[in-house]
Amino acid sequence: MTVSFSDLKPGVSASITKTVSERDVEVFGEISGDLNPLHFDEAFARKTIARHRCVHGGLVFSLVSAVFGTKLPGPGTIVLEIKTSFTGIVRIGDAVTAICTVREVQNKRRVMFDCICKVGEAVVLEGEALVLAPANP
Amino acid sequence: MTVSFSDLKPGVSASITKTVSERDVEVFGEISGDLNPLHFDEAFARKTIARHRCVHGGLVFSLVSAVFGTKLPGPGTIVLEIKTSFTGIVRIGDAVTAICTVREVQNKRRVMFDCICKVGEAVVLEGEALVLAPANP
Repeated sequence: MTVSFSDLKPGVSASITKTVSERDVEVFGEISGDLNPLHFDEAFARKTIARHRCVHGGLVFSLVSAVFGTKLPGPGTIVLEIKTSFTGIVRIGDAVTAICTVREVQNKRRVMFDCICKVGEAVVLEGEALVLAPANP
Repeated sequence: MTVSFSDLKPGVSASITKTVSERDVEVFGEISGDLNPLHFDEAFARKTIARHRCVHGGLVFSLVSAVFGTKLPGPGTIVLEIKTSFTGIVRIGDAVTAICTVREVQNKRRVMFDCICKVGEAVVLEGEALVLAPANP
């Protein structure tokens, strides 16, 4: 689904929810090379402030890109800039909801979004992203 | 390999190079849900400013996290904040090098890094990241 550019107004938002599986983490580690034991070794993770194995921040953020690229603005969207804080730990098995809300429509089809990811009511990622919306659906 | 915290000084850097494959893009799309045709449909991509299929920005950024989580500072590192511009398009088959350089060592084991990703000499990602270095190797 693509929202036409004229429909992009401050406050318009879309979301995606995904339950992160063991396989998701394994595969993300394999294709990125990020084999940080924090994500794979429970005994190691217990000795860190994470206290248990956790999901890669990059995998959590990828749900935000999925909203941009498939829902709002939709297919053809290009992410130009991101600024993100990882404010909470995501565990394997958590259902993560990524919510992207139009903050400002700029010129040349650039749109600034506020982005958050939540597990239940806990905000685990917070930030903003500047995207280039597609020319036309 | 983990660098001990005392070795983390401005200018210290590490890098990872990866050639992005068709499978990497397919799998990243599957686990993130980011099935934006920009990454999968050559005819669609040709009608956009990308001109050809391109690699997810999130996959390119994941190489930066791989440097943090496996080399510098190394296992146990937690990414706290990122600020990134995607300055160039990465194609399937490109060899991407992620380079992370210590900019500033802050208190409480926080370290600010400058991060870039390059394809050949072209900078395709530029930004900074604040990480929490592991307590001790």
